[in-house]
Amino acid sequence: MENPLYKENLVDSTFSYFDEKENVGFKNAIENMVLDYLADEQINSPASTEQLAKCFGFKRVPEEGQLAETLIQELEELILPHSVNTGSPYFIGHMTSLLPNFLRPLSQLITTLNQNSVKVETAKAATFYEKQALAMLHKEIYGYSDEYYKNLVGDPSKISGVVTSGGTIANLMALQCGRDISLAPYGDVEEDGIYSVLNSAGFTKSVVLGTHLGHYSLVKAMGLLGMGRSGYIQIGTDDQQRLKVRELRCQLERCRQEKIHVAAIVGIAGTTECGSFDPLDEMADLAEEFGVYFHVDAAWGGALMFSDEHKHLLKGVKRADSVTIDGHKQLYLPMGIGVLLFKTPEKAKHVSTEADYIIRKNSQDLGRVSIEGSRPAKVFYLQAALKLFGKSGYSEILDGCISVARNLSHYIDQSSEFELLTTPQSNIFLYRYLPTALRDMKSSEEREQAINDFNIRLQEAQKHRGKTFVSRTKFMSPKINESLVALRVVIANPLSSLDHCKEVLRDQLQLARELEKSI
Amino acid sequence: MENPLYKENLVDSTFSYFDEKENVGFKNAIENMVLDYLADEQINSPASTEQLAKCFGFKRVPEEGQLAETLIQELEELILPHSVNTGSPYFIGHMTSLLPNFLRPLSQLITTLNQNSVKVETAKAATFYEKQALAMLHKEIYGYSDEYYKNLVGDPSKISGVVTSGGTIANLMALQCGRDISLAPYGDVEEDGIYSVLNSAGFTKSVVLGTHLGHYSLVKAMGLLGMGRSGYIQIGTDDQQRLKVRELRCQLERCRQEKIHVAAIVGIAGTTECGSFDPLDEMADLAEEFGVYFHVDAAWGGALMFSDEHKHLLKGVKRADSVTIDGHKQLYLPMGIGVLLFKTPEKAKHVSTEADYIIRKNSQDLGRVSIEGSRPAKVFYLQAALKLFGKSGYSEILDGCISVARNLSHYIDQSSEFELLTTPQSNIFLYRYLPTALRDMKSSEEREQAINDFNIRLQEAQKHRGKTFVSRTKFMSPKINESLVALRVVIANPLSSLDHCKEVLRDQLQLARELEKSI
Repeated sequence: MENPLYKENLVDSTFSYFDEKENVGFKNAIENMVLDYLADEQINSPASTEQLAKCFGFKRVPEEGQLAETLIQELEELILPHSVNTGSPYFIGHMTSLLPNFLRPLSQLITTLNQNSVKVETAKAATFYEKQALAMLHKEIYGYSDEYYKNLVGDPSKISGVVTSGGTIANLMALQCGRDISLAPYGDVEEDGIYSVLNSAGFTKSVVLGTHLGHYSLVKAMGLLGMGRSGYIQIGTDDQQRLKVRELRCQLERCRQEKIHVAAIVGIAGTTECGSFDPLDEMADLAEEFGVYFHVDAAWGGALMFSDEHKHLLKGVKRADSVTIDGHKQLYLPMGIGVLLFKTPEKAKHVSTEADYIIRKNSQDLGRVSIEGSRPAKVFYLQAALKLFGKSGYSEILDGCISVARNLSHYIDQSSEFELLTTPQSNIFLYRYLPTALRDMKSSEEREQAINDFNIRLQEAQKHRGKTFVSRTKFMSPKINESLVALRVVIANPLSSLDHCKEVLRDQLQLARELEKSI
Repeated sequence: MENPLYKENLVDSTFSYFDEKENVGFKNAIENMVLDYLADEQINSPASTEQLAKCFGFKRVPEEGQLAETLIQELEELILPHSVNTGSPYFIGHMTSLLPNFLRPLSQLITTLNQNSVKVETAKAATFYEKQALAMLHKEIYGYSDEYYKNLVGDPSKISGVVTSGGTIANLMALQCGRDISLAPYGDVEEDGIYSVLNSAGFTKSVVLGTHLGHYSLVKAMGLLGMGRSGYIQIGTDDQQRLKVRELRCQLERCRQEKIHVAAIVGIAGTTECGSFDPLDEMADLAEEFGVYFHVDAAWGGALMFSDEHKHLLKGVKRADSVTIDGHKQLYLPMGIGVLLFKTPEKAKHVSTEADYIIRKNSQDLGRVSIEGSRPAKVFYLQAALKLFGKSGYSEILDGCISVARNLSHYIDQSSEFELLTTPQSNIFLYRYLPTALRDMKSSEEREQAINDFNIRLQEAQKHRGKTFVSRTKFMSPKINESLVALRVVIANPLSSLDHCKEVLRDQLQLARELEKSI
């Protein structure tokens, strides 16, 4: 009747991995890798994706466990050298950047505790730590009286929001709330499905209104939620890449006339492509007037709530029914954490679930209102960063990044080699390189096509060389009404100075000259 | 034009957190916490959730960053003592358990690298490492020829599956695929929404068929996907808690007659409540016969593919269109990783997305086919565990856990104080305590109610004392056709011996005697 596997076999490799004593050799090897990696300046290895794919041939799960040394070797030879140095100050093209050093030890702690935040029985303190953190963010966004927050953590009915694996799931849940709440007068979408509810209401379609600069997670959510990607109606943007309020009104009126159901209006606070902020306050006016659910995707820009200089960009956010903020963007947390905040706890009730064995009714179990089930206690990261940085720390970082972005955009605007395509409202903007021969030519389809092609090759060459990095996208130019290939700058690394950024441009200029010569 | 924040201010606290040199004091403090925590035997603190909630009062985000010491103190005094010791061998009530020690250093590495697996530009090696790991699991489940897998990693069109934040998102995506693929002959659900497609096909409802033992994520997914929770049709189970195939056939025929659209059949390989396995092979027969999408939720039981002794429970799984396997369950990875495998890459294409700035068409970007967007490179955990354990390591662990569960269930069955409610097919089963006064009484509504009440109090008392733990759920007894409160055993910790488990029962008996005296 004895478990044959216990104790006697602790020397055996499988069970020794569950020994409480650390696997010291492995630990030290990883520690050294961490330090080596942090010291390396190269952003990208010269291997092409095709070459690299060949290094990762087909392997079977081994019959017997391999030695830890084999894994260490694989990490050292194959993984580390071909990982992207997202923390380099010269990596200014994506929203992924350098993390504060206190998160590394915390990730060990989270893994050691292995709490499952789905319910109190597997995450006791973590449950309340999360409720507290959500209330802290809720207060910054919605600013209810201190009285409201006083007993919030102890009250299972008071839900400030949910912690998600990222902004995508947060946006998905927001549109789910919009769909369900807006259709509630006609029926229960969660229970009966959208077909039956639309049918009994006399609608044939449910749509969401936002600009083409909305994150692709919104369109993805429309597909998932059964409203269809075509149900994401694109409102035009002005020359600052902000939603045109007048056009939104026209669409709302058209939907009303044509009996098209509007599930939600989405305002973007910090577009992924160019960091622009929609006029949230005016959008909130329309949402109120038309009685429509209003969601703000502040995945990128939400952190500006901590900046006295820039929080005006978020004006009106507190009138939103729900707000997405990404932890792994400008809160400087590791990949895989976002939050969705609800203006009132009632919003969340429409989408809650219970199950006998896991999340009981009226319990404090956080799983009651999350799309995800089992999940780690990432709230440790959030609490640590909010407390160690404080508002002033975040403000220092964010104000600095925006200042660098603006200075860099001026610099580009004054140069003859580059053309600035968007003016940064925050710390993201678009530009492009103008090849020497095409620089002074009048715009024509051929010229733009040639410039597009050149910029694609330039960005690929820069990525391949791996010393500096900007990303690229497509941009609908309002000036010439044409889709242009654009280079995209994101200043997210607090250590990226204007000097670093100019170095990125110098690298580009050098590559451009080489490319021009080779043509 | 200089960034005023760079270098000069590196001594300042905010920017010193971005210094490459480790924050040594903080790191050591966390390290000590980790060791203290691992040495602590108490599972649960005596604080009630109400008492604990009071400790987490309302806090504002501080104006100025706090000292790291303050955070350390908070973790030491408030968080660690009230965290649940999910790694204790006496914690045998949930699917969360002890982790192998090599994952702790790996979590540091993942956080340091901060790769974003959404696209190659932010996760180069990690992208191919993930494709390789998915192919390894695909081979174990579907067993295609080695030829098929040979150039898989290098071919963007060959998608074996996706890594998700857990089984819930994997199941959601599976039902999305079922919905979209099964309705494809009538229209494009992703693009046009479910209303228009059902309408043009002449259906009014789309349903999914599975048992009441299906994980609650399935019902949640039905709500999200617009099919409605009521669209999850419950098929009855036999006395071994397995789906009744004959009843499934009847429902499929009824749906066909009544023109109800069937989006998918779901088979469960390891039910959350009692570890039972549906007859997957016979279900696959019906799925083929009726031309219905077949998904297998093997979140719990999928790991048995590595056990020669138990893999027969998964017979038929390779005929499924998609299979969910949770990493953070029986692959012994930290919270927050699951996978969805696809029988053929075509399944994934129905739900793929592209965006210019992030995931380009025909690229190797993993974000093309995942519901989630930005996400960490958790594949490091998966690769390490598959390679360090190997099939034999997993088999040793899983066979051992199942053996302990079966031995414990025999022990309970032979005792007079406890009643065994389900016989474990794997390592989960249900039982209950029979209070002395009710032990020899005939079943009646009053008796069962009294036993139910007692078992709730018993489980709460055990949790409160915090030395041992089993969970509780409700169980529809086929014998007396009544819903019973059941105690639930999950043997997931490789170090939980039969002796540990008997100690859990002794703890219960002692508490039961105390409770009986106090009545």
